[in-house]
Amino acid sequence: MDQSRIDRIMTSMKAAGLSQALLSDPFTLTYLTGDRFNPNERYLALLLREGQKPALFLNRLFVAPHVEAEFIVPYDDSERGALKCLPLIDRKAPLGIDKRLAAEFLLELQENHAASAYVNVSPCVDHVRACKDADEIAKMEYASRMNDEVMARIKTCVRAGVTELELADRLNAIYRELGAQRLSFPSIVCFGANAADPHHSPDGTVLKEGDCVLFDIGGVWNDYCSDMTRTYYYKFVTDRDREVYETVLRANLAAEAIMKQGVRYCDLDAEARRIITDAGYGPYFTHRLGHSIGLQGHEWGDVGPVNTEPVKTGNIFSCEPGIYLPGETGVRIEDLCLITDDGVKILNQASKELEIIQ
Amino acid sequence: MDQSRIDRIMTSMKAAGLSQALLSDPFTLTYLTGDRFNPNERYLALLLREGQKPALFLNRLFVAPHVEAEFIVPYDDSERGALKCLPLIDRKAPLGIDKRLAAEFLLELQENHAASAYVNVSPCVDHVRACKDADEIAKMEYASRMNDEVMARIKTCVRAGVTELELADRLNAIYRELGAQRLSFPSIVCFGANAADPHHSPDGTVLKEGDCVLFDIGGVWNDYCSDMTRTYYYKFVTDRDREVYETVLRANLAAEAIMKQGVRYCDLDAEARRIITDAGYGPYFTHRLGHSIGLQGHEWGDVGPVNTEPVKTGNIFSCEPGIYLPGETGVRIEDLCLITDDGVKILNQASKELEIIQ
Repeated sequence: MDQSRIDRIMTSMKAAGLSQALLSDPFTLTYLTGDRFNPNERYLALLLREGQKPALFLNRLFVAPHVEAEFIVPYDDSERGALKCLPLIDRKAPLGIDKRLAAEFLLELQENHAASAYVNVSPCVDHVRACKDADEIAKMEYASRMNDEVMARIKTCVRAGVTELELADRLNAIYRELGAQRLSFPSIVCFGANAADPHHSPDGTVLKEGDCVLFDIGGVWNDYCSDMTRTYYYKFVTDRDREVYETVLRANLAAEAIMKQGVRYCDLDAEARRIITDAGYGPYFTHRLGHSIGLQGHEWGDVGPVNTEPVKTGNIFSCEPGIYLPGETGVRIEDLCLITDDGVKILNQASKELEIIQ
Repeated sequence: MDQSRIDRIMTSMKAAGLSQALLSDPFTLTYLTGDRFNPNERYLALLLREGQKPALFLNRLFVAPHVEAEFIVPYDDSERGALKCLPLIDRKAPLGIDKRLAAEFLLELQENHAASAYVNVSPCVDHVRACKDADEIAKMEYASRMNDEVMARIKTCVRAGVTELELADRLNAIYRELGAQRLSFPSIVCFGANAADPHHSPDGTVLKEGDCVLFDIGGVWNDYCSDMTRTYYYKFVTDRDREVYETVLRANLAAEAIMKQGVRYCDLDAEARRIITDAGYGPYFTHRLGHSIGLQGHEWGDVGPVNTEPVKTGNIFSCEPGIYLPGETGVRIEDLCLITDDGVKILNQASKELEIIQ
C-alpha cells in the first residue's frame, strides 16, 4: 500500500466531506497497491476509512502479492462480494463511490442501506492521480523514449508494397523486442485517405507513392503508457498536403509553447484550434486537442474546450492537433507533455519536421 | 433495431414490474441494433419504454449506421449525456438500470430524481441473450468450426525449439487468414509446468520433450465468439500425465453426456467435479466447469456450483474441466455446448483423444 498516495486521496476526500470511500477502478488499485488487477465482472474494491486501515475486497480467484494479508477481505463466488463491506463502514455517514463501479454493486449497497448517501468520489482520486510523482514521471519518460525508438524503427519498414497490417504486426514485434508489457492501444497505421479517420484500424491497404503515412502508437512500460503520433509522406508530397502538415505542426507547437502551470486546459485547445481555424481548416479538426495519460491511455483531464481547470505541475497529457479531409488525407502530430515547475517538458523527441520517406 | 429481441426483453421487464429501462452494455446494444460500440468513458445508453419507441443516447463522436435517425438522441462533450433521458422517462415509475452502467451516471440520475426507484434490469436482458436464436446459433457454429481449423493448423507448428510466444503470434496470423474479426481473448499457450496456471500468458519458454502443450483459443466471427482448449504432449507422455489427461477427458465427457434442457448448471459442474474428485485430483480442479458465451467471451450463466438455474434450449456454454498440478503440469479440455430441443450439440469437433505430437 502506498500510504502517501492514500493520504493525498484522504485529504482530498476530507475536503469534500467524505470520511469513507469504495475505490474500484483497477488502475486506481494498481496506483495504490502496486498490484495489477483484471477482475472482469467480479466485484473488486478498496475501502478507505478515516483513522482506520484500508480493506481490499478480493475474490479468492485473484491474488494481490503486494498487499499484506491484514488488509485483504476475501470472498468467493458463493458470496455477495459487494456486501462484505457492511460491517466495516459507518452506515450513518456518506460513502464515496468510484465513478466506474458497476451499477449492480451500487444498487446492492443502496438496497442494504450501506450508508447515509452515495457520492461520486472520483474527482478526489483523479486530481491526485493527475499529478504524477517522481517515480511515475521517470516511468513515463522511459516509456516515451521507448516510443521514440519504436517510431525510428518502424519508419525504416515503410517501403513499396507494404500494407498497413504488415506495419502494425511489425510494431507489435518492435514493442516486444524493446520490453514493452503491452500496447497502450491497438496501433493506428493509416495510408493516404485512411488517415482521414482518426480511429482507422490498419487493414490490407497497400502503400502508394504520395500517400501520407500516419502512425499513432504507444506501449506500456512498468504499467505506464506512452502515446505519440507522427505523419510522414512516401516518395513525394503535394503542395496542398504540405500546407495541411505545416498547419497542424504550427498548431502543435503553438499549444506547447504556452504550456505552464496555471494555464487552463481549454486555453491550450483554443490556441491550437485558432491556428487551424485561421488557416481555413477549423471544421476538419474534429476532436479535442488531447487527453491526460498515465496508468491508462486516457485519464481524467481532457485537453478540450470545456475543461476550465488549470494545468498543474506533474500533469502529463497529449497535444495532438489534426486535420482530417474525408476521402483525401489526414495529418495528426502528437506529443506527450509534462508540466514542470518552470514550464513544460515534451517527452517525445522524434522529429516533427515534414519528412518524405524514399 | 431488432424489434423481436426488444419485445422479448420488454416482456421480461413487464414480468419484473418495469415499464422502462436504460441499457448500457455495449454488447447488449450490438445485440439490439446490429451496430458495434466502443464508448470507453463516455455515456451510451438505450432507453426502452413500454408503448414508446426506443431512444439511443449517443455522443456525436460516434455513429450507429444501423439505427434510424428518429431513434437517436445525440449529445456532445459539453453536455451531461446521462441527463438527456430526463424528458423522456416517467419519473414517477421505477427505472431499470443495466448492471454495467458506471456509478457516476447512476448517481447523476438519482441526484436529478430521474425515477421513483432504480432496479437492476440485467436479469431480464441476460435471460434473453442467453437463449441464442437461429441467426446467432449459425454464427456460433461457424466460429467454432473456424476454431477447429485453427487448432488443426497450430498443431502442425509445434516443433523443437519453438516458444509459446511464437505459437501465440502464429495463432494471430491463422485467425486473420481465416477471416476472424479479432481474438475472443488473448490466446493461452502453455508448455509443461506453465499449464498449471489456468491463465498463463505465453512467454519465451522453449518446448521440451515430454511437455504438455495446452492451447486455449478463440476467435470472433460476425461478432460471435469461439473458445476451445486442447492439451497435447510433445514426443512422449508419462504414465502420470496420461492418468491426469484421461481423468480430465472423462470429466469433460461425463458432463457433456448429461446435458439437456432442465438439467441445472450446478449439476453439470458437480458431475465433472465428482469424477475428478474420485480420481483424487479434486483440490486441483480450481475453477468452475464453464461459462456462457456469445457476443462476449463470458456471458451471464456460470456453469458452476452456485448456479441452480436449469439450462434451456439455445443456451451455449463451455465445458472445460481441468487439473492443475503446480510446478508440474496442467490439463484442460474445453468444448462449446449448445442445448437443443432434444439434447446437446457439441460445437467443437477437434479430437479429444490423447495425442502425442512428434
